[in-house]
Amino acid sequence: MKVVKFGGSSLATGNNVNKALNIIKNDSSRQVIVVSAPGKRTDDDIKVTDLLITYAYTSLRSNNYDDTVEKIFRRYELIAQYFDLPESDLTKIKRLLLTLPTYDYPNADYRMATFKAHGERLNAILIAKILNHQGIKTRYLEPKDVGLIVTGTPNNAEVNPETYVNLKRINLKNNEKIIFPGFYGITPSGHIATFSRGGSDITGAILARGFDAELYENFTDVDAIFSANPNIVTNPAPIKKMTYQEMRELSYAGFSVFHDEALIPAIQGEIPVNVKNTNDPEKPGTLIVPEDGFIPKHTITGIAGGKNFAALYLRKYMLNKGAGFTLKLMEIFDRHHVSYEHMPSGIDDLTIIFKKDALSDQLIDVICNEIQTSLNPDQMQWIDDYAITMVVGEGMKDKLTLCASILYPLGEKNISIQMINQGASQISIMIGTRRQDEEEVIKTIYQNFIENR
Amino acid sequence: MKVVKFGGSSLATGNNVNKALNIIKNDSSRQVIVVSAPGKRTDDDIKVTDLLITYAYTSLRSNNYDDTVEKIFRRYELIAQYFDLPESDLTKIKRLLLTLPTYDYPNADYRMATFKAHGERLNAILIAKILNHQGIKTRYLEPKDVGLIVTGTPNNAEVNPETYVNLKRINLKNNEKIIFPGFYGITPSGHIATFSRGGSDITGAILARGFDAELYENFTDVDAIFSANPNIVTNPAPIKKMTYQEMRELSYAGFSVFHDEALIPAIQGEIPVNVKNTNDPEKPGTLIVPEDGFIPKHTITGIAGGKNFAALYLRKYMLNKGAGFTLKLMEIFDRHHVSYEHMPSGIDDLTIIFKKDALSDQLIDVICNEIQTSLNPDQMQWIDDYAITMVVGEGMKDKLTLCASILYPLGEKNISIQMINQGASQISIMIGTRRQDEEEVIKTIYQNFIENR
Repeated sequence: MKVVKFGGSSLATGNNVNKALNIIKNDSSRQVIVVSAPGKRTDDDIKVTDLLITYAYTSLRSNNYDDTVEKIFRRYELIAQYFDLPESDLTKIKRLLLTLPTYDYPNADYRMATFKAHGERLNAILIAKILNHQGIKTRYLEPKDVGLIVTGTPNNAEVNPETYVNLKRINLKNNEKIIFPGFYGITPSGHIATFSRGGSDITGAILARGFDAELYENFTDVDAIFSANPNIVTNPAPIKKMTYQEMRELSYAGFSVFHDEALIPAIQGEIPVNVKNTNDPEKPGTLIVPEDGFIPKHTITGIAGGKNFAALYLRKYMLNKGAGFTLKLMEIFDRHHVSYEHMPSGIDDLTIIFKKDALSDQLIDVICNEIQTSLNPDQMQWIDDYAITMVVGEGMKDKLTLCASILYPLGEKNISIQMINQGASQISIMIGTRRQDEEEVIKTIYQNFIENR
Repeated sequence: MKVVKFGGSSLATGNNVNKALNIIKNDSSRQVIVVSAPGKRTDDDIKVTDLLITYAYTSLRSNNYDDTVEKIFRRYELIAQYFDLPESDLTKIKRLLLTLPTYDYPNADYRMATFKAHGERLNAILIAKILNHQGIKTRYLEPKDVGLIVTGTPNNAEVNPETYVNLKRINLKNNEKIIFPGFYGITPSGHIATFSRGGSDITGAILARGFDAELYENFTDVDAIFSANPNIVTNPAPIKKMTYQEMRELSYAGFSVFHDEALIPAIQGEIPVNVKNTNDPEKPGTLIVPEDGFIPKHTITGIAGGKNFAALYLRKYMLNKGAGFTLKLMEIFDRHHVSYEHMPSGIDDLTIIFKKDALSDQLIDVICNEIQTSLNPDQMQWIDDYAITMVVGEGMKDKLTLCASILYPLGEKNISIQMINQGASQISIMIGTRRQDEEEVIKTIYQNFIENR
């Protein structure tokens, strides 16, 4: 049995939904289907999720939200019309949409989560109806039906391990399809809470693990995961096969094809993941597999870059003699709910690297002030334009001159390296640079190690 | 005015003391002289400080310590006899030595500190007497006379900034020499507390700063600080001149010629430091100067290696998403008074590097148990044979291919690099390896970058 997930762009129009349905019908083992909310049809279109966010805000301020509701409903209606679905099949969708502002929510965050989740929820209800209308026996299931329990914050929830116990109890019949909405789960007290944005990938992975699928197919709008960002490198080579750990290390610095957190349930359940193109399902796509028995074909599998980092440089004589310097630093971060990414240190200095999106300018000021007061560094500098490039490959293991070979051409191009970390697993090298150098780093490594192989 | 410090080997015999006194007499600006305790005369000799430690332990258990006292006293007596000092000049030394066990000490640690400090104290008293005996106007001063105040633990004290205010009040006459014992200071409540072992270097630096000396001359038994350890590299090139920061980075990984902590007061007072050989004082030695205006002659100034490191490898999925992982780790370290050196991290892992001498096997077990319980890592490994090599040079700045050029030959020799840190100051590269590779690392870099220049 396979779990299949379709992304928003794969379900944006009736025509796209039809392609997705053909994929499902072509393989009877594709039994559990996780759907996203309808995405953009054109570059200047608005995603249903974004319309729902507007709806959530507008309906708080006034009763004047008919336009937005109409826009949202129209997206589902257009898909329904493509499949000649009777008008009555849309009644439930309309009702659910209209009653969204009328419920009691524990707070504004849960309210927002519920609005957002309905992009997926309504789409799953609709697609189940289409399949049944086409004579294919289909069951709509949602998180509360199967016990997909989440905890954490309402708009950044995490799956609760209890979910896997619950999913074991669900009985899948051989001749039926299951349609399931992605992106959200249900809290222990029964409220909707969503994963982070793009979280339908996570739902698919949870179901694949819970139902012990033979394969988790993740359908999107690209042929494969590429060995480098196509916006930086022209026609980068696709990655045919890689390990979980390779994917994990590549995602870290910005490979956004497959959601970072979605890999965890797949790894835990040892479910292979296949990223494929809805528009060209015969192409092999990218297969992501366990490390055991994997034989790498190339030295470097991929290069990913993330520009969205910043760093704080601290210098103080005998910094590491004063036990507790890092403790005090961590207490400050913890007090402001800030987590750091890396912390390379010299003899008398420490660089703390952050993901930038978690930090507002105000928060940076507050933290720097507290550090100044409680740690009194000799020097403190905020570096706003930090980038991290990950060079990843199971084939890098035991290639002891590789790191030097990667770094030398960067030096020749006058690129200053701020940080180097050769992972203990030895399947990745992390390179910190200034942001303006990051594309050149990726291009140079690609040319030397992937293009010319 | 210059502050001059003589190490234990420079004062081990009458003959050596005479060399030191000639150095003092040769330059009238050499006015403040800091002395260590008499060191080893031959390879199998025992240092006076070690005899005093034995004395401290023995006198706790029994009254049967005459032998040890006699051995200690004999060292001073032999030096006195070399200079034909009258027997009466030794009365005070004998009395101070014999009454050591009779005082009230706040605790065993203070008792030990006082015993140890007398190696320096008695030697300074003796040498002041010798100089006066030779007709040179000499004043013996000790920490309590000048207000050299220390705080911290009795056997690992740190100078209190108040000391510098106190030293400003001391009036040095033009025609007199000052003899001052190294290694210890006085606590606010008047007890003796010592610096860490080898701490006479620190005393010299404190006095140089406090008296605003033009130069701090540190006399030892080597011609210069070498660019690599002579036990690893044959006839390494001497370092003629380097900056404070270069010295600091080299000391970190084991350059033990000049005490690590002694550099701080010199830096704070911007006092140049000259490391010279008592046995060949005409040689220029090594001059350590401020960074301002320093023009490096070579790319790499020196290479130092420290074998005495260990590392704890921790792996956990989404480690940095769980804010507080490092905080909990730091709380555990803090509870056990353990400080770490470096903490390079990958995507899902963290390596914590320690100086090994601060950790007993039992403490390692306790810490690992607490980490297991409170952080539940997926993988935890103790790496007992970690070594760090520092490659240091102000001339390394802006040499962007240098790091790669250093690493490549190491890879060719099958040396696996566990950590690379290119300091933010860019005047050093820190290389972590397994211990068995460390000498080869130093030899290889020396051959490629210093020997062949």
